[in-house]
Amino acid sequence: MTLTHAYAATSATTPLAPFSFERRTPTARDVAIDILHCGVCHSDLHTARSEWGPANYPCVPGHEIVGRVSAVGDGVSKFQVGDVVGVGCMVDSCQHCQPCNDGLEQYCENGFTGTYDSPEQVSRANTLGGYSDHIVVHEKFVLRVSHDEKDLAAVAPLLCAGITTYSPLRQWKVGPGMKVGIVGLGGLGHMGVKIAAAMGAHVVLFTTSAGKKADALRLGAKEVVVSKNEDEMAAHANSFDFILNTVAAPHNLDAFLALLKLDGTMTLVGAPGTPHPSPNVFGLIMKRRRLAGSLIGGIPETQEMLDFCAEHGIVSDIEVIPMAGINDAYERMLKSDVKYRFVVDMATVQDAVAA
Amino acid sequence: MTLTHAYAATSATTPLAPFSFERRTPTARDVAIDILHCGVCHSDLHTARSEWGPANYPCVPGHEIVGRVSAVGDGVSKFQVGDVVGVGCMVDSCQHCQPCNDGLEQYCENGFTGTYDSPEQVSRANTLGGYSDHIVVHEKFVLRVSHDEKDLAAVAPLLCAGITTYSPLRQWKVGPGMKVGIVGLGGLGHMGVKIAAAMGAHVVLFTTSAGKKADALRLGAKEVVVSKNEDEMAAHANSFDFILNTVAAPHNLDAFLALLKLDGTMTLVGAPGTPHPSPNVFGLIMKRRRLAGSLIGGIPETQEMLDFCAEHGIVSDIEVIPMAGINDAYERMLKSDVKYRFVVDMATVQDAVAA
Repeated sequence: MTLTHAYAATSATTPLAPFSFERRTPTARDVAIDILHCGVCHSDLHTARSEWGPANYPCVPGHEIVGRVSAVGDGVSKFQVGDVVGVGCMVDSCQHCQPCNDGLEQYCENGFTGTYDSPEQVSRANTLGGYSDHIVVHEKFVLRVSHDEKDLAAVAPLLCAGITTYSPLRQWKVGPGMKVGIVGLGGLGHMGVKIAAAMGAHVVLFTTSAGKKADALRLGAKEVVVSKNEDEMAAHANSFDFILNTVAAPHNLDAFLALLKLDGTMTLVGAPGTPHPSPNVFGLIMKRRRLAGSLIGGIPETQEMLDFCAEHGIVSDIEVIPMAGINDAYERMLKSDVKYRFVVDMATVQDAVAA
Repeated sequence: MTLTHAYAATSATTPLAPFSFERRTPTARDVAIDILHCGVCHSDLHTARSEWGPANYPCVPGHEIVGRVSAVGDGVSKFQVGDVVGVGCMVDSCQHCQPCNDGLEQYCENGFTGTYDSPEQVSRANTLGGYSDHIVVHEKFVLRVSHDEKDLAAVAPLLCAGITTYSPLRQWKVGPGMKVGIVGLGGLGHMGVKIAAAMGAHVVLFTTSAGKKADALRLGAKEVVVSKNEDEMAAHANSFDFILNTVAAPHNLDAFLALLKLDGTMTLVGAPGTPHPSPNVFGLIMKRRRLAGSLIGGIPETQEMLDFCAEHGIVSDIEVIPMAGINDAYERMLKSDVKYRFVVDMATVQDAVAA
């Protein structure tokens, strides 16, 4: 057992606060990890506040984890002490259904175990996440990180924001010669721009904020369209091979579907709290267009994404915060006041917990 | 010029009535066809009554045409006098855009010419359709029919209902080992069942009418689900590779999307007059499902469909009517009182027009 210092929500309405608990002693296939950095995802906030259904408290969020291996079980072959590793949104799955056998653990038919607020496969104990200085994870759900040490904080958001955008871009075979739209320039969208550009696509960023134009171009977009401007939108009608829509707030999907060419696809990676206006079926029929969804990515694909990002020098644009700053960060995140991801420096958690 | 006997609507509110006009003399690439049979599609009724926007009158509907070649232009190489041929929903397209070059004329970027109530490519004259005893069509838009002579009336609906269902089934690679749902057992749905079964899929028919069960099984479905019965629906959750939804009336798409397995697709071939309830994005995301549309099919694929149907002995289930019975047929069609397609015996048009 390892004493772990963390930050937890103890109810839906209380701020996150210091919390200590014991992580399990590594079993044969487990990897014990000292957490260096943990990204701050919107899901963390929604879960801590029970906005996606009642959470189990104490709730320790965090699923964009980068750390260093501190111990390994006897049966671990992929990792050794000292390795820099990542953990994303999943720490286990049934490991015997078809999707699990296919490396698509995110679609596990028996329900994957989320990194936090999720039942473990056997014990059904509630998982506690990455806002903590230590975690123990089955080696199958641990990823190699090969970025430079200096970039490790900015690697953390790849474990959720990175794979959530990489997976649909790969699924729909984005590459050179393709015109690809990214809707929204937040934590997900800014990763989508970087990754799609690195894949060789002509990337167009859609935003409601004209002020984001320079940033989008810096991140790799070739064009920026202010989606509120109908003329700007009309100029791109029937021209996109693929659109990745990262905006969870309810909005008019038809405005983007109309920009897809024949056999084009728009994939949604955010689920709105209340429904989007119903998409126009005629628009789907007349160009054989597709509206799809996508959920993070499987473990093999997450490794592929990390390797791809290391090779292309891709990390997240981040603002590092101390653990004690998490509640302020949540308030800023709600105002979209972050470019583009907060990452907690986990060296600060022990002091915060001890304080 | 050839005097042609037809039935036409002269306004949105008047019944169809006898009408005569001249077809053009065949030019070099034209095929002149004596029409034997013409199927009755819901589109005919919607167009004749200006329900899809104002029609041009006189309006001669009909785009499920089977006939015999009576003359060919000097440059026609594919057909000769006496051949049995078909004409579907299109009689021309720009023939130079990418979709046209790819044999996807239904997605012509410059707008295909519909068989009726549609502007010709050069003259922009309004086309007059298959409720007539003669038609002249560019050979590229004429299809070979290789069914037995005795089946020709029942072949006519393949030209619209057949290709509209065949195309998405092919597009999404339906075949042996796949579980395929067909939603709705009308003109389109009954063709979808026959074709998907002939492709080797395990076909499940969804209907709101328990009374259609025996018929669906006869047509080739292996199972029939009454979609109003939640228990029956739940038993099929996450199990379909593909669902072809032929129901244009607004309905809850989520009930069917939830039946798709990982990476499954539901294709809509009918556009509702008012929107479907907005589909649940969470349902798309959690299984990487797709919602798509599809419009009839291209000319090469229509020929492939006709050949496939001839090889597998597939025709439509029809009720033959005389031309003078068209207005009664429309009323019965509105009550879904047809199994499953009316087909006009065009030998009756000349008498009706002369009467």
